[in-house]
Amino acid sequence: MPQDHPDSAFDRATTVSRAEGGGAVAELDPGWEVGGGILNGGYLLALTARAVLLDSPHPHPVAVSASFLRASAGGAAGISLTPAPAGRTLANTLAVLSTDAGPTLTAQVTTATLAEETADSDWSANPMPQVPAPEACSAALRPEGVPVPGLVQRLDIRFDPATAGWVEGRPAAEPRLRAWMRLADGREPDPLALLMFADALPPSGFAIGRLGWAPTVQLQVLVRALPAPGWCLVENSSSEVAGGWTDEDCRIWDSTGRLVAQSRQLARLPR
Amino acid sequence: MPQDHPDSAFDRATTVSRAEGGGAVAELDPGWEVGGGILNGGYLLALTARAVLLDSPHPHPVAVSASFLRASAGGAAGISLTPAPAGRTLANTLAVLSTDAGPTLTAQVTTATLAEETADSDWSANPMPQVPAPEACSAALRPEGVPVPGLVQRLDIRFDPATAGWVEGRPAAEPRLRAWMRLADGREPDPLALLMFADALPPSGFAIGRLGWAPTVQLQVLVRALPAPGWCLVENSSSEVAGGWTDEDCRIWDSTGRLVAQSRQLARLPR
Repeated sequence: MPQDHPDSAFDRATTVSRAEGGGAVAELDPGWEVGGGILNGGYLLALTARAVLLDSPHPHPVAVSASFLRASAGGAAGISLTPAPAGRTLANTLAVLSTDAGPTLTAQVTTATLAEETADSDWSANPMPQVPAPEACSAALRPEGVPVPGLVQRLDIRFDPATAGWVEGRPAAEPRLRAWMRLADGREPDPLALLMFADALPPSGFAIGRLGWAPTVQLQVLVRALPAPGWCLVENSSSEVAGGWTDEDCRIWDSTGRLVAQSRQLARLPR
Repeated sequence: MPQDHPDSAFDRATTVSRAEGGGAVAELDPGWEVGGGILNGGYLLALTARAVLLDSPHPHPVAVSASFLRASAGGAAGISLTPAPAGRTLANTLAVLSTDAGPTLTAQVTTATLAEETADSDWSANPMPQVPAPEACSAALRPEGVPVPGLVQRLDIRFDPATAGWVEGRPAAEPRLRAWMRLADGREPDPLALLMFADALPPSGFAIGRLGWAPTVQLQVLVRALPAPGWCLVENSSSEVAGGWTDEDCRIWDSTGRLVAQSRQLARLPR
Protein backbone atom coordinates (compact mmCIF):
# COMPACT_ATOMS: atom_id res chain seq x y z
CA MET A 1 0.00 0.00 0.00
CA PRO A 2 1.20 3.55 -0.60
CA GLN A 3 2.54 5.25 2.48
CA ASP A 4 0.18 7.66 4.13
CA HIS A 5 1.61 10.96 5.28
CA PRO A 6 -0.93 12.45 7.69
CA ASP A 7 0.46 15.93 7.10
CA SER A 8 0.52 15.69 3.31
CA ALA A 9 -1.90 17.95 1.43
CA PHE A 10 -1.77 15.49 -1.48
CA ASP A 11 -2.70 12.53 0.71
CA ARG A 12 -5.50 14.49 2.40
CA ALA A 13 -6.86 15.61 -0.98
CA THR A 14 -6.84 12.08 -2.37
CA THR A 15 -8.34 10.37 0.68
CA VAL A 16 -10.92 7.75 -0.22
CA SER A 17 -13.11 5.56 1.97
CA ARG A 18 -15.13 2.46 1.31
CA ALA A 19 -18.76 3.16 0.56
CA GLU A 20 -21.61 1.11 1.93
CA GLY A 21 -22.66 -1.40 -0.71
CA GLY A 22 -19.32 -1.26 -2.57
CA GLY A 23 -17.13 1.28 -4.28
CA ALA A 24 -15.68 4.32 -2.56
CA VAL A 25 -16.47 7.90 -1.71
CA ALA A 26 -14.25 10.97 -1.61
CA GLU A 27 -14.39 14.72 -1.22
CA LEU A 28 -12.78 16.39 -4.24
CA ASP A 29 -10.54 19.18 -2.97
CA PRO A 30 -11.25 22.43 -4.88
CA GLY A 31 -7.64 23.46 -4.28
CA TRP A 32 -6.27 21.19 -7.05
CA GLU A 33 -7.71 23.33 -9.83
CA VAL A 34 -6.05 24.44 -13.02
CA GLY A 35 -8.09 27.62 -13.44
CA GLY A 36 -11.73 28.57 -13.07
CA GLY A 37 -12.24 25.94 -10.39
CA ILE A 38 -11.74 23.07 -12.85
CA LEU A 39 -9.87 20.24 -11.22
CA ASN A 40 -6.66 18.85 -12.69
CA GLY A 41 -7.13 15.54 -14.50
CA GLY A 42 -4.04 14.00 -12.94
CA TYR A 43 -5.37 14.79 -9.47
CA LEU A 44 -8.66 13.05 -10.32
CA LEU A 45 -6.73 10.10 -11.74
CA ALA A 46 -4.56 9.73 -8.61
CA LEU A 47 -7.64 9.80 -6.39
CA THR A 48 -9.39 7.23 -8.58
CA ALA A 49 -6.35 4.94 -8.52
CA ARG A 50 -6.20 5.24 -4.74
CA ALA A 51 -9.80 4.02 -4.59
CA VAL A 52 -8.83 1.03 -6.74
CA LEU A 53 -6.01 0.20 -4.29
CA LEU A 54 -8.49 -0.13 -1.40
CA ASP A 55 -9.33 -3.66 -2.51
CA SER A 56 -6.58 -4.55 -4.96
CA PRO A 57 -4.36 -7.56 -4.18
CA HIS A 58 -1.40 -5.61 -5.62
CA PRO A 59 -0.07 -2.30 -4.28
CA HIS A 60 1.00 -0.35 -7.39
CA PRO A 61 -0.95 1.06 -10.32
CA VAL A 62 1.23 0.15 -13.32
CA ALA A 63 -1.09 0.98 -16.23
CA VAL A 64 -3.89 3.50 -15.94
CA SER A 65 -5.98 4.78 -18.82
CA ALA A 66 -8.75 7.29 -18.41
CA SER A 67 -11.38 8.93 -20.55
CA PHE A 68 -12.31 12.40 -19.34
CA LEU A 69 -16.04 12.88 -19.74
CA ARG A 70 -16.56 16.33 -18.30
CA ALA A 71 -14.77 19.02 -16.35
CA SER A 72 -15.20 18.64 -12.62
CA ALA A 73 -15.20 21.03 -9.66
CA GLY A 74 -14.64 20.24 -5.98
CA GLY A 75 -17.19 18.46 -3.83
CA ALA A 76 -18.55 15.04 -3.00
CA ALA A 77 -17.73 12.19 -5.37
CA GLY A 78 -18.31 8.48 -5.64
CA ILE A 79 -16.10 5.90 -7.30
CA SER A 80 -17.68 2.70 -8.59
CA LEU A 81 -15.25 -0.19 -8.81
CA THR A 82 -15.61 -3.27 -11.00
CA PRO A 83 -12.70 -5.65 -10.41
CA ALA A 84 -11.94 -8.40 -12.91
CA PRO A 85 -10.73 -11.76 -11.59
CA ALA A 86 -7.19 -11.06 -10.33
CA GLY A 87 -4.17 -13.03 -11.45
CA ARG A 88 -0.98 -13.81 -9.58
CA THR A 89 0.95 -10.89 -11.01
CA LEU A 90 -1.77 -8.51 -12.21
CA ALA A 91 -5.23 -7.28 -11.31
CA ASN A 92 -7.55 -5.09 -13.38
CA THR A 93 -10.30 -2.80 -12.17
CA LEU A 94 -12.70 -0.59 -14.04
CA ALA A 95 -13.43 2.59 -12.06
CA VAL A 96 -15.94 5.36 -12.70
CA LEU A 97 -15.61 8.64 -10.81
CA SER A 98 -18.89 10.53 -10.55
CA THR A 99 -20.07 13.74 -8.95
CA ASP A 100 -23.55 15.22 -8.62
CA ALA A 101 -23.23 16.30 -12.26
CA GLY A 102 -22.76 12.70 -13.43
CA PRO A 103 -19.74 10.59 -14.46
CA THR A 104 -16.52 12.61 -14.63
CA LEU A 105 -14.05 10.00 -15.78
CA THR A 106 -13.79 6.30 -16.47
CA ALA A 107 -10.50 4.56 -15.77
CA GLN A 108 -8.98 1.17 -16.42
CA VAL A 109 -6.44 0.48 -13.69
CA THR A 110 -3.96 -2.41 -13.77
CA THR A 111 -2.17 -3.05 -10.50
CA ALA A 112 0.93 -5.16 -9.87
CA THR A 113 3.92 -5.18 -7.55
CA LEU A 114 6.89 -3.15 -8.69
CA ALA A 115 10.31 -4.18 -7.42
CA GLU A 116 11.65 -2.27 -4.41
CA GLU A 117 15.23 -2.74 -5.55
CA THR A 118 16.24 -0.84 -8.64
CA ALA A 119 17.98 -3.18 -11.06
CA ASP A 120 19.29 -1.67 -14.28
CA SER A 121 16.99 -1.56 -17.28
CA ASP A 122 17.54 -4.34 -19.83
CA TRP A 123 17.07 -1.73 -22.54
CA SER A 124 16.42 1.98 -22.35
CA ALA A 125 16.08 4.62 -25.01
CA ASN A 126 15.16 7.15 -22.32
CA PRO A 127 18.32 8.73 -20.97
CA MET A 128 17.50 11.54 -18.56
CA PRO A 129 17.89 14.85 -20.40
CA GLN A 130 20.64 17.19 -19.28
CA VAL A 131 18.91 19.93 -17.31
CA PRO A 132 20.43 22.39 -14.82
CA ALA A 133 19.87 21.45 -11.16
CA PRO A 134 16.51 22.51 -9.66
CA GLU A 135 18.19 25.34 -7.75
CA ALA A 136 19.39 26.80 -11.06
CA CYS A 137 15.95 26.54 -12.70
CA SER A 138 13.12 29.04 -12.59
CA ALA A 139 10.38 28.41 -10.03
CA ALA A 140 6.96 28.04 -11.66
CA LEU A 141 6.91 31.21 -13.69
CA ARG A 142 3.76 32.60 -15.21
CA PRO A 143 3.45 35.12 -18.01
CA GLU A 144 2.51 38.47 -16.48
CA GLY A 145 -1.16 38.72 -15.58
CA VAL A 146 -1.78 34.98 -15.58
CA PRO A 147 -3.10 33.89 -12.18
CA VAL A 148 -1.43 31.01 -10.37
CA PRO A 149 -3.87 28.09 -10.23
CA GLY A 150 -4.27 26.00 -7.09
CA LEU A 151 -2.49 23.03 -8.66
CA VAL A 152 0.67 25.04 -9.22
CA GLN A 153 0.62 26.25 -5.61
CA ARG A 154 0.56 22.64 -4.40
CA LEU A 155 3.57 21.65 -6.49
CA ASP A 156 7.13 22.86 -6.57
CA ILE A 157 7.85 23.24 -10.30
CA ARG A 158 11.18 24.48 -11.71
CA PHE A 159 11.25 24.95 -15.46
CA ASP A 160 14.34 24.11 -17.43
CA PRO A 161 15.47 27.53 -18.73
CA ALA A 162 15.89 25.97 -22.19
CA THR A 163 12.13 25.37 -22.37
CA ALA A 164 10.91 28.39 -20.38
CA GLY A 165 11.37 31.16 -22.95
CA TRP A 166 7.62 31.32 -23.60
CA VAL A 167 7.14 32.88 -20.16
CA GLU A 168 8.97 35.97 -21.41
CA GLY A 169 7.54 35.94 -24.92
CA ARG A 170 10.47 34.08 -26.47
CA PRO A 171 8.86 30.88 -27.74
CA ALA A 172 10.99 27.86 -28.66
CA ALA A 173 10.92 26.05 -31.99
CA GLU A 174 9.68 22.74 -30.54
CA PRO A 175 6.60 21.92 -28.42
CA ARG A 176 8.55 20.51 -25.47
CA LEU A 177 8.53 21.49 -21.80
CA ARG A 178 10.82 20.20 -19.08
CA ALA A 179 10.58 20.88 -15.39
CA TRP A 180 11.70 19.52 -12.06
CA MET A 181 8.70 18.68 -9.94
CA ARG A 182 7.91 17.66 -6.39
CA LEU A 183 4.99 18.03 -4.02
CA ALA A 184 5.09 21.32 -2.14
CA ASP A 185 4.08 19.50 1.04
CA GLY A 186 7.39 17.61 1.16
CA ARG A 187 5.81 14.19 0.57
CA GLU A 188 8.07 11.95 -1.48
CA PRO A 189 6.92 10.73 -4.91
CA ASP A 190 5.20 7.37 -5.33
CA PRO A 191 3.13 5.86 -8.15
CA LEU A 192 0.05 7.89 -7.15
CA ALA A 193 2.00 11.14 -7.28
CA LEU A 194 3.41 10.12 -10.68
CA LEU A 195 -0.13 9.79 -12.04
CA MET A 196 -0.68 13.41 -11.08
CA PHE A 197 2.74 14.63 -12.28
CA ALA A 198 1.96 13.09 -15.71
CA ASP A 199 -0.80 15.64 -16.22
CA ALA A 200 0.52 18.61 -14.22
CA LEU A 201 2.58 20.60 -16.72
CA PRO A 202 0.91 23.03 -19.12
CA PRO A 203 0.30 21.75 -22.66
CA SER A 204 3.60 21.54 -24.51
CA GLY A 205 2.20 23.97 -27.08
CA PHE A 206 3.02 26.64 -24.49
CA ALA A 207 6.70 26.13 -25.37
CA ILE A 208 6.09 27.42 -28.89
CA GLY A 209 3.90 30.27 -27.70
CA ARG A 210 0.47 28.68 -28.15
CA LEU A 211 -0.92 29.47 -24.73
CA GLY A 212 -4.37 27.94 -25.24
CA TRP A 213 -5.58 25.15 -23.03
CA ALA A 214 -5.98 21.68 -24.52
CA PRO A 215 -8.58 19.56 -22.70
CA THR A 216 -7.54 15.94 -22.23
CA VAL A 217 -9.69 13.44 -24.08
CA GLN A 218 -7.96 10.21 -23.10
CA LEU A 219 -4.80 9.67 -21.08
CA GLN A 220 -2.72 6.56 -20.51
CA VAL A 221 -0.04 6.51 -17.82
CA LEU A 222 2.41 3.64 -17.39
CA VAL A 223 4.31 3.53 -14.09
CA ARG A 224 7.55 1.74 -14.89
CA ALA A 225 9.39 1.82 -11.55
CA LEU A 226 9.06 3.05 -7.98
CA PRO A 227 10.54 6.56 -7.83
CA ALA A 228 13.42 7.33 -5.49
CA PRO A 229 12.93 10.19 -3.00
CA GLY A 230 13.60 13.69 -4.25
CA TRP A 231 12.87 15.69 -7.36
CA CYS A 232 11.35 14.18 -10.49
CA LEU A 233 12.12 15.53 -13.94
CA VAL A 234 8.97 15.78 -16.07
CA GLU A 235 9.07 16.25 -19.84
CA ASN A 236 6.02 16.97 -21.99
CA SER A 237 6.15 17.04 -25.76
CA SER A 238 3.79 16.87 -28.69
CA SER A 239 4.77 14.79 -31.69
CA GLU A 240 1.76 15.40 -33.93
CA VAL A 241 -0.52 18.42 -34.00
CA ALA A 242 -3.12 18.10 -36.76
CA GLY A 243 -6.78 18.59 -37.52
CA GLY A 244 -7.62 20.16 -34.17
CA TRP A 245 -6.01 17.39 -32.11
CA THR A 246 -2.68 16.98 -30.41
CA ASP A 247 -0.86 14.24 -28.56
CA GLU A 248 1.06 14.94 -25.36
CA ASP A 249 3.81 12.53 -24.50
CA CYS A 250 5.15 12.71 -20.98
CA ARG A 251 8.21 11.06 -19.52
CA ILE A 252 9.19 11.23 -15.87
CA TRP A 253 12.59 10.42 -14.38
CA ASP A 254 13.35 10.16 -10.67
CA SER A 255 16.27 11.73 -8.83
CA THR A 256 18.53 8.80 -9.75
CA GLY A 257 17.90 9.33 -13.48
CA ARG A 258 15.67 6.28 -13.92
CA LEU A 259 12.60 6.47 -16.15
CA VAL A 260 9.71 5.92 -13.73
CA ALA A 261 6.66 6.81 -15.83
CA GLN A 262 5.59 7.49 -19.38
CA SER A 263 2.23 8.69 -20.56
CA ARG A 264 0.41 9.77 -23.66
CA GLN A 265 -2.77 11.72 -24.03
CA LEU A 266 -4.97 12.82 -26.89
CA ALA A 267 -6.13 16.40 -26.36
CA ARG A 268 -8.46 18.71 -28.24
CA LEU A 269 -7.02 22.01 -29.38
CA PRO A 270 -8.88 25.25 -28.87
CA ARG A 271 -10.39 26.51 -32.12
CA MET B 1 -19.89 4.78 -40.64
CA PRO B 2 -17.04 2.57 -41.84
CA GLN B 3 -17.55 1.16 -45.33
CA ASP B 4 -18.67 -2.43 -45.45
CA HIS B 5 -17.00 -4.69 -47.96
CA PRO B 6 -19.20 -7.79 -48.26
CA ASP B 7 -16.27 -9.80 -49.61
CA SER B 8 -13.78 -8.72 -46.95
CA ALA B 9 -12.59 -11.40 -44.53
CA PHE B 10 -11.81 -8.64 -42.03
CA ASP B 11 -15.30 -7.19 -42.22
CA ARG B 12 -16.89 -10.62 -41.94
CA ALA B 13 -14.72 -11.48 -38.94
CA THR B 14 -15.58 -8.22 -37.15
CA THR B 15 -19.32 -8.31 -37.85
CA VAL B 16 -21.39 -7.27 -34.85
CA SER B 17 -25.15 -7.11 -34.38
CA ARG B 18 -27.34 -5.44 -31.82
CA ALA B 19 -28.36 -7.72 -28.98
CA GLU B 20 -31.83 -7.79 -27.51
CA GLY B 21 -31.86 -5.69 -24.38
CA GLY B 22 -28.80 -3.67 -25.38
CA GLY B 23 -25.18 -4.21 -26.29
CA ALA B 24 -24.03 -6.35 -29.19
CA VAL B 25 -23.17 -9.92 -30.09
CA ALA B 26 -20.51 -11.32 -32.38
CA GLU B 27 -18.91 -14.57 -33.44
CA LEU B 28 -15.15 -14.41 -32.82
CA ASP B 29 -13.42 -15.86 -35.88
CA PRO B 30 -10.81 -18.45 -34.81
CA GLY B 31 -8.82 -17.58 -37.94
CA TRP B 32 -7.39 -14.38 -36.43
CA GLU B 33 -5.13 -16.23 -34.02
CA VAL B 34 -1.51 -15.55 -33.19
CA GLY B 35 -0.66 -19.14 -32.27
CA GLY B 36 -2.30 -21.88 -30.26
CA GLY B 37 -5.76 -20.60 -31.15
CA ILE B 38 -5.29 -17.42 -29.11
CA LEU B 39 -6.89 -14.48 -30.87
CA ASN B 40 -4.95 -11.33 -31.71
CA GLY B 41 -5.66 -8.42 -29.35
CA GLY B 42 -5.92 -5.93 -32.19
CA TYR B 43 -8.58 -8.06 -33.87
CA LEU B 44 -10.60 -8.13 -30.64
CA LEU B 45 -10.16 -4.38 -30.29
CA ALA B 46 -11.36 -3.68 -33.85
CA LEU B 47 -14.43 -5.84 -33.30
CA THR B 48 -15.17 -4.11 -29.98
CA ALA B 49 -14.81 -0.67 -31.57
CA ARG B 50 -17.16 -1.71 -34.37
CA ALA B 51 -19.77 -2.60 -31.73
CA VAL B 52 -19.34 0.86 -30.21
CA LEU B 53 -19.96 2.44 -33.63
CA LEU B 54 -23.38 0.76 -33.88
CA ASP B 55 -24.89 3.49 -31.72
CA SER B 56 -22.26 6.21 -31.70
CA PRO B 57 -23.20 9.65 -33.03
CA HIS B 58 -19.68 9.91 -34.51
CA PRO B 59 -18.19 7.56 -37.12
CA HIS B 60 -14.52 7.23 -36.14
CA PRO B 61 -12.78 5.74 -33.11
CA VAL B 62 -10.08 8.32 -32.31
CA ALA B 63 -8.87 7.11 -28.90
CA VAL B 64 -9.22 3.51 -27.78
CA SER B 65 -7.67 2.05 -24.65
CA ALA B 66 -8.10 -1.56 -23.64
CA SER B 67 -7.15 -3.76 -20.74
CA PHE B 68 -6.66 -7.38 -21.74
CA LEU B 69 -8.08 -9.60 -19.03
CA ARG B 70 -7.54 -13.07 -20.48
CA ALA B 71 -6.57 -14.82 -23.69
CA SER B 72 -9.53 -15.59 -25.90
CA ALA B 73 -10.31 -18.24 -28.49
CA GLY B 74 -12.94 -18.15 -31.24
CA GLY B 75 -16.65 -18.52 -30.57
CA ALA B 76 -19.69 -16.59 -29.42
CA ALA B 77 -19.12 -13.26 -27.68
CA GLY B 78 -21.15 -10.44 -26.25
CA ILE B 79 -20.21 -6.77 -26.00
CA SER B 80 -21.80 -4.67 -23.27
CA LEU B 81 -21.88 -0.96 -24.12
CA THR B 82 -22.16 1.90 -21.64
CA PRO B 83 -22.28 5.22 -23.47
CA ALA B 84 -21.60 8.46 -21.63
CA PRO B 85 -23.60 11.54 -22.60
CA ALA B 86 -22.29 12.49 -26.06
CA GLY B 87 -20.97 15.94 -26.88
CA ARG B 88 -21.00 17.80 -30.17
CA THR B 89 -17.51 16.74 -31.17
CA LEU B 90 -16.87 13.64 -29.04
CA ALA B 91 -18.63 10.63 -27.58
CA ASN B 92 -17.30 8.11 -25.06
CA THR B 93 -18.36 4.52 -24.56
CA LEU B 94 -17.20 1.88 -22.13
CA ALA B 95 -17.28 -1.57 -23.74
CA VAL B 96 -16.70 -5.00 -22.24
CA LEU B 97 -16.14 -7.97 -24.54
CA SER B 98 -17.04 -11.30 -22.92
CA THR B 99 -17.07 -14.92 -23.97
CA ASP B 100 -18.34 -18.02 -22.16
CA ALA B 101 -15.14 -17.89 -20.11
CA GLY B 102 -15.94 -14.41 -18.78
CA PRO B 103 -14.77 -10.88 -19.63
CA THR B 104 -11.95 -10.83 -22.20
CA LEU B 105 -11.24 -7.14 -22.47
CA THR B 106 -12.52 -3.79 -21.31
CA ALA B 107 -12.21 -0.82 -23.62
CA GLN B 108 -12.73 2.90 -23.44
CA VAL B 109 -13.63 4.17 -26.90
CA THR B 110 -13.79 7.83 -27.86
CA THR B 111 -15.43 8.53 -31.20
CA ALA B 112 -15.34 11.73 -33.27
CA THR B 113 -15.40 12.75 -36.91
CA LEU B 114 -12.02 12.88 -38.61
CA ALA B 115 -11.67 15.20 -41.59
CA GLU B 116 -12.02 13.62 -45.04
CA GLU B 117 -9.65 16.12 -46.58
CA THR B 118 -6.04 15.79 -45.56
CA ALA B 119 -4.69 19.17 -44.54
CA ASP B 120 -1.03 19.35 -43.56
CA SER B 121 -0.10 18.77 -39.93
CA ASP B 122 0.47 21.93 -37.89
CA TRP B 123 3.44 20.18 -36.30
CA SER B 124 4.88 16.74 -36.86
CA ALA B 125 7.89 14.99 -35.39
CA ASN B 126 6.87 11.82 -37.20
CA PRO B 127 8.40 11.85 -40.68
CA MET B 128 7.77 8.54 -42.43
CA PRO B 129 10.95 6.44 -42.19
CA GLN B 130 12.82 5.66 -45.38
CA VAL B 131 11.98 2.06 -46.20
CA PRO B 132 12.32 0.23 -49.53
CA ALA B 133 9.07 -0.13 -51.47
CA PRO B 134 6.84 -3.07 -50.46
CA GLU B 135 7.87 -4.97 -53.59
CA ALA B 136 11.50 -4.80 -52.47
CA CYS B 137 10.71 -5.98 -48.92
CA SER B 138 10.44 -9.54 -47.64
CA ALA B 139 6.95 -11.03 -47.41
CA ALA B 140 6.08 -12.12 -43.86
CA LEU B 141 9.10 -14.27 -43.16
CA ARG B 142 9.25 -16.72 -40.27
CA PRO B 143 12.28 -18.31 -38.72
CA GLU B 144 12.48 -21.92 -39.92
CA GLY B 145 10.08 -24.21 -38.11
CA VAL B 146 7.85 -21.44 -36.81
CA PRO B 147 4.28 -22.02 -38.02
CA VAL B 148 2.43 -19.18 -39.72
CA PRO B 149 -0.43 -18.07 -37.48
CA GLY B 150 -3.86 -17.28 -38.89
CA LEU B 151 -3.39 -13.55 -38.31
CA VAL B 152 -0.34 -13.45 -40.55
CA GLN B 153 -2.22 -15.30 -43.30
CA ARG B 154 -4.92 -12.63 -43.26
CA LEU B 155 -2.45 -9.78 -43.63
CA ASP B 156 0.07 -8.93 -46.28
CA ILE B 157 3.19 -8.00 -44.28
CA ARG B 158 6.51 -6.98 -45.86
CA PHE B 159 9.36 -6.47 -43.43
CA ASP B 160 11.87 -3.70 -43.97
CA PRO B 161 15.10 -5.65 -44.64
CA ALA B 162 16.87 -3.35 -42.16
CA THR B 163 14.73 -4.76 -39.32
CA ALA B 164 14.29 -8.35 -40.58
CA GLY B 165 17.72 -9.80 -39.75
CA TRP B 166 16.30 -11.72 -36.78
CA VAL B 167 14.49 -14.04 -39.20
CA GLU B 168 17.89 -15.36 -40.30
CA GLY B 169 19.53 -15.27 -36.89
CA ARG B 170 21.16 -11.86 -37.39
CA PRO B 171 19.55 -9.76 -34.67
CA ALA B 172 19.74 -5.96 -34.78
CA ALA B 173 21.03 -3.71 -31.99
CA GLU B 174 17.71 -1.97 -31.39
CA PRO B 175 14.24 -3.38 -30.56
CA ARG B 176 12.51 -1.88 -33.60
CA LEU B 177 10.49 -3.55 -36.37
CA ARG B 178 9.15 -1.93 -39.51
CA ALA B 179 6.85 -3.48 -42.06
CA TRP B 180 4.47 -2.54 -44.81
CA MET B 181 1.03 -3.88 -44.05
CA ARG B 182 -2.33 -4.28 -45.73
CA LEU B 183 -5.26 -6.63 -45.47
CA ALA B 184 -4.79 -9.74 -47.60
CA ASP B 185 -8.44 -9.50 -48.70
CA GLY B 186 -7.79 -6.26 -50.59
CA ARG B 187 -9.95 -4.13 -48.32
CA GLU B 188 -8.54 -0.64 -47.91
CA PRO B 189 -7.43 0.58 -44.47
CA ASP B 190 -9.77 2.56 -42.23
CA PRO B 191 -9.68 3.39 -38.51
CA LEU B 192 -10.92 -0.11 -37.57
CA ALA B 193 -8.14 -1.75 -39.58
CA LEU B 194 -5.62 0.61 -37.95
CA LEU B 195 -6.69 -0.62 -34.50
CA MET B 196 -5.76 -4.12 -35.63
CA PHE B 197 -2.55 -3.09 -37.42
CA ALA B 198 -1.40 -1.43 -34.16
CA ASP B 199 -1.16 -4.85 -32.52
CA ALA B 200 -0.32 -7.07 -35.49
CA LEU B 201 3.50 -7.07 -35.62
CA PRO B 202 5.52 -9.38 -33.38
CA PRO B 203 6.97 -7.82 -30.20
CA SER B 204 9.81 -5.52 -31.14
CA GLY B 205 12.11 -7.64 -28.96
CA PHE B 206 12.13 -10.04 -31.94
CA ALA B 207 14.37 -7.52 -33.72
CA ILE B 208 17.14 -8.07 -31.17
CA GLY B 209 16.63 -11.84 -31.16
CA ARG B 210 14.35 -12.19 -28.14
CA LEU B 211 11.69 -14.35 -29.75
CA GLY B 212 9.46 -14.76 -26.68
CA TRP B 213 5.88 -13.58 -26.74
CA ALA B 214 4.93 -10.57 -24.62
CA PRO B 215 1.25 -10.58 -23.62
CA THR B 216 -0.40 -7.17 -23.81
CA VAL B 217 -1.55 -5.79 -20.48
CA GLN B 218 -2.97 -2.46 -21.60
CA LEU B 219 -3.00 -0.86 -25.04
CA GLN B 220 -3.92 2.67 -26.12
CA VAL B 221 -4.39 3.45 -29.80
CA LEU B 222 -4.90 6.99 -31.11
CA VAL B 223 -6.22 7.29 -34.66
CA ARG B 224 -4.93 10.63 -35.91
CA ALA B 225 -6.22 10.74 -39.50
CA LEU B 226 -8.19 8.73 -42.03
CA PRO B 227 -5.71 6.56 -43.95
CA ALA B 228 -5.43 6.86 -47.73
CA PRO B 229 -5.91 3.67 -49.76
CA GLY B 230 -2.90 1.41 -50.18
CA TRP B 231 -0.10 0.12 -47.98
CA CYS B 232 0.46 1.32 -44.44
CA LEU B 233 3.91 1.40 -42.88
CA VAL B 234 3.86 0.06 -39.32
CA GLU B 235 6.73 0.60 -36.88
CA ASN B 236 6.99 -1.06 -33.47
CA SER B 237 9.67 -0.20 -30.96
CA SER B 238 10.35 -0.59 -27.28
CA SER B 239 11.84 2.32 -25.40
CA GLU B 240 12.12 0.79 -21.92
CA VAL B 241 12.56 -2.86 -21.02
CA ALA B 242 12.92 -3.30 -17.27
CA GLY B 243 11.80 -5.42 -14.35
CA GLY B 244 9.89 -7.92 -16.47
CA TRP B 245 7.89 -5.29 -18.35
CA THR B 246 8.23 -3.61 -21.71
CA ASP B 247 6.50 -0.85 -23.59
CA GLU B 248 5.67 -1.19 -27.28
CA ASP B 249 5.27 2.03 -29.20
CA CYS B 250 3.65 1.75 -32.60
CA ARG B 251 3.39 4.36 -35.32
CA ILE B 252 1.49 3.87 -38.55
CA TRP B 253 1.82 5.96 -41.72
CA ASP B 254 -0.46 5.71 -44.73
CA SER B 255 0.61 5.48 -48.37
CA THR B 256 0.88 9.27 -48.60
CA GLY B 257 3.39 9.37 -45.71
CA ARG B 258 0.96 10.85 -43.19
CA LEU B 259 0.99 9.63 -39.57
CA VAL B 260 -2.44 8.03 -39.16
CA ALA B 261 -2.13 6.21 -35.83
CA GLN B 262 0.10 5.93 -32.79
CA SER B 263 -0.22 3.47 -29.97
CA ARG B 264 1.51 2.36 -26.81
CA GLN B 265 1.13 -0.80 -24.84
CA LEU B 266 2.50 -2.20 -21.62
CA ALA B 267 3.39 -5.86 -22.02
CA ARG B 268 4.63 -8.54 -19.67
CA LEU B 269 7.87 -10.25 -20.61
CA PRO B 270 8.24 -14.01 -20.46
CA ARG B 271 10.35 -15.06 -17.49
